[in-house]
Amino acid sequence: MTDHSSTFNEFSSAVHLSLQEELKHAVANSRQSHSSGLGEMISYQMGWSGEGAGPEASGKQIRPKMVLLSCAAAGGQWQDALPAAAAVELIHNFSLIHDDIEDHSKYRRGRPTIWKIWGIPQAINTGDAMFALANAALLRLEKSIPPETVLEAGKLFHQTCLRLTQGQHLDILFESIQNVSVEDYWEMVSGKTAALLAFSMEVGALCAKANKKLQKNLSDFGLNLGLAFQAQDDFLGIWGIKENLGKSTSGDLVSKKKTLPVLFGLNQSQQFKRIWDQESLSSSDIEDLKQILEKAGGYDYTKKEVEKLTQRALHSLEMISPSPSLSSLLDLADLLLSRTR
Amino acid sequence: MTDHSSTFNEFSSAVHLSLQEELKHAVANSRQSHSSGLGEMISYQMGWSGEGAGPEASGKQIRPKMVLLSCAAAGGQWQDALPAAAAVELIHNFSLIHDDIEDHSKYRRGRPTIWKIWGIPQAINTGDAMFALANAALLRLEKSIPPETVLEAGKLFHQTCLRLTQGQHLDILFESIQNVSVEDYWEMVSGKTAALLAFSMEVGALCAKANKKLQKNLSDFGLNLGLAFQAQDDFLGIWGIKENLGKSTSGDLVSKKKTLPVLFGLNQSQQFKRIWDQESLSSSDIEDLKQILEKAGGYDYTKKEVEKLTQRALHSLEMISPSPSLSSLLDLADLLLSRTR
Repeated sequence: MTDHSSTFNEFSSAVHLSLQEELKHAVANSRQSHSSGLGEMISYQMGWSGEGAGPEASGKQIRPKMVLLSCAAAGGQWQDALPAAAAVELIHNFSLIHDDIEDHSKYRRGRPTIWKIWGIPQAINTGDAMFALANAALLRLEKSIPPETVLEAGKLFHQTCLRLTQGQHLDILFESIQNVSVEDYWEMVSGKTAALLAFSMEVGALCAKANKKLQKNLSDFGLNLGLAFQAQDDFLGIWGIKENLGKSTSGDLVSKKKTLPVLFGLNQSQQFKRIWDQESLSSSDIEDLKQILEKAGGYDYTKKEVEKLTQRALHSLEMISPSPSLSSLLDLADLLLSRTR
Repeated sequence: MTDHSSTFNEFSSAVHLSLQEELKHAVANSRQSHSSGLGEMISYQMGWSGEGAGPEASGKQIRPKMVLLSCAAAGGQWQDALPAAAAVELIHNFSLIHDDIEDHSKYRRGRPTIWKIWGIPQAINTGDAMFALANAALLRLEKSIPPETVLEAGKLFHQTCLRLTQGQHLDILFESIQNVSVEDYWEMVSGKTAALLAFSMEVGALCAKANKKLQKNLSDFGLNLGLAFQAQDDFLGIWGIKENLGKSTSGDLVSKKKTLPVLFGLNQSQQFKRIWDQESLSSSDIEDLKQILEKAGGYDYTKKEVEKLTQRALHSLEMISPSPSLSSLLDLADLLLSRTR
C-alpha cells in the first residue's frame, strides 16, 4: 500500500525545471525584435514577467503534469512527452486569454487580465499567437517519437482544440437561452473542461508507445476527472464554504449561472423555476432557492454525480500496474476533488 | 510566347469543385448536433449560408489556388495539395474574423461581419474553431505525402500563423504610436500579408516534392507578390480612382492610415508632418497633404517600390520551366497588381 498523499507534489518538483525550460523554448520564437510587445504579453500571461509575476501567476500547471505522469504511468520516459506538456499548457493559456475577453473577466490568478491591460484587439491577437506556439510546441515531439505518432498526436490535439471551442460556444450560448438540458450541460463540460484533460492523458500514453487499450483507459481517467471536477466546482458554487467567513457562498445562484444543480432545480421544481425566472434575486430569494433545491434533492444529486464520475475515473486506472506515477495520478485526483473554496 | 491573360480563370474553374469539396470536408466535423450554431457561423463566414451567400461572399480564394498552382508549376499533381489549400483558406478566414473584431469592421465581402451578427464572444470563439479546423485540414496531407513531409508542412504552417499574429500585433500597435519606421512597416506587411502567400507557394512546392531551391523560388514569389500587393494597395489608397466618381479617393489620408507613402511623407517633409499631426484634417488639408507628398517624391517612390517588388517576384519564377500553371501564376500576379479601386 502506497501513501500517495504527497507523491504529486514530489513529482511536480522533480519535473518543474524541465517543464519550464520546454515552455521557455516553445515561447522563444515569438520574441522577435520587431514584435517584442507580443512576446511581453505572452510572458505576462505565463506568469513570467510584469507586476505580480511568480509561481502564483503561472498557475498550477496541472495539465502538463498530467501529460508527463500519464507517460510515466504507461511505462514511458516522461522526458519524451515534454513537448506535448508544453503544448497543453500553452493551449490552456490561449483559452484563458480568450475566455477572459468573452466573459469580461478582469482578473486571473490575482492579476489583471491581458485585455484589461492591453485592450481587446491585442488580447485576441496574443491568444492567437499562443495557439500557434502551442501547435509548434507539439511538433517538437519528433525528437522522441516516430513521425507517424507525432501526426497522430497532432490529429488528437486539433480535434481537442475544436472540442474546446464547441464547449465554449455552448457556454456562451447558455447565458442567453432559457432551456438548457442536463444533456447539453454535459456536452458543454465535456468540451470546455474535460476534453483537454482527456487529451493530456492520452498524448502522454501515446508518447509512452502504450497500446490502444491503455491509451483509452488513461484518456477516460482524464475525461471523467474533468467531468467530476466541474460537477464538484458547481457543487461548491452553491454549497461551498468561504474560508474567511465560515459560511456558504451560494455564489453561482447570485450570478445566475446555469450550473448542474441549477439545471436539476429548473427541471424538478416549478417553485424553483418561478423564483429563478424573476428579473432580480434578493438575498432571501437566494436562501429560498437553496432550500427548495435541497428539498428537491439537488444537493444529493450533485454530490452523487461527483462521486459516480470520480469512481469512473478511478476505475479506469485499475488495470494499470502500481508505480510512483500511478500514485501521483491518484494523488492528483484527490487534490482536485477534495478542495473547498 | 503564351498569352496568360485568362489562364488563371481557366485554372480556377478547373479546380473549383475539388477545392469546395475539400473545404466542406474540412469543416464537416465542426457541425456536431450540440454545437450546430458554431457550424452555422463557420458556414456563414465561408459564404455558404445566410443572407447573401454565394461566390461573392466566399471571396476569390486566391491563396488556396496559389497552393494548387505552385504544386502544379513545381511538377506535382495539384490534387495532392488540396488539404494544404483548404488549410490556408480556413486560416485566412480565421484571421478575417479576428481582424474584423480588432478593427471594428462591420462589413466583409458585402455582408455584416460575424461579430456584428452574433456578438464579439461568439465571433472570437468561431475564429478559434476555424484555426483548429485549419490545423486539422493540413494533416489530411498524409493521404498523399510521406509523414516526414507532412510534419515539415505543419512546422511551416505554425510558423506562418505566428508570423500572421506578429504582423497583426504591429498593425494594431501602429495605430497608437507616433514614430513608425519604413523598416517596421515592411516587417508588419511581411507578417500580416506576405507570410501566408509565401507559405501557400512553399507548401504547394513541398507537396510536389520539389527540391529546396525550387521551393525557395516559389516561396519568394509569394512573399514579394504579397509585399508588392500591399504597396500597390497603399498607392491606390491615395491615388486610386473611384470608378463611379472618376476622381481620386485619398481614402487612406482621410482615415489617417500609416501606409507606405504616408511614412515616406512623414520622414521626408516637415510640412507634411505638421499638417498630418493636426487633431483633425479638413478636405483642403487632405488636398495639401497629397500635393506635398507628390512634390516630395512620395508618388514616384511608392510606384517604384511596387515595380521593384513585382520584378523581384517575377524574377523568382525565371528558373521554372514553362507550363500552363506557370502562365497562370503570371496571370495571377497581373490580376493582383493591375487592379484599380
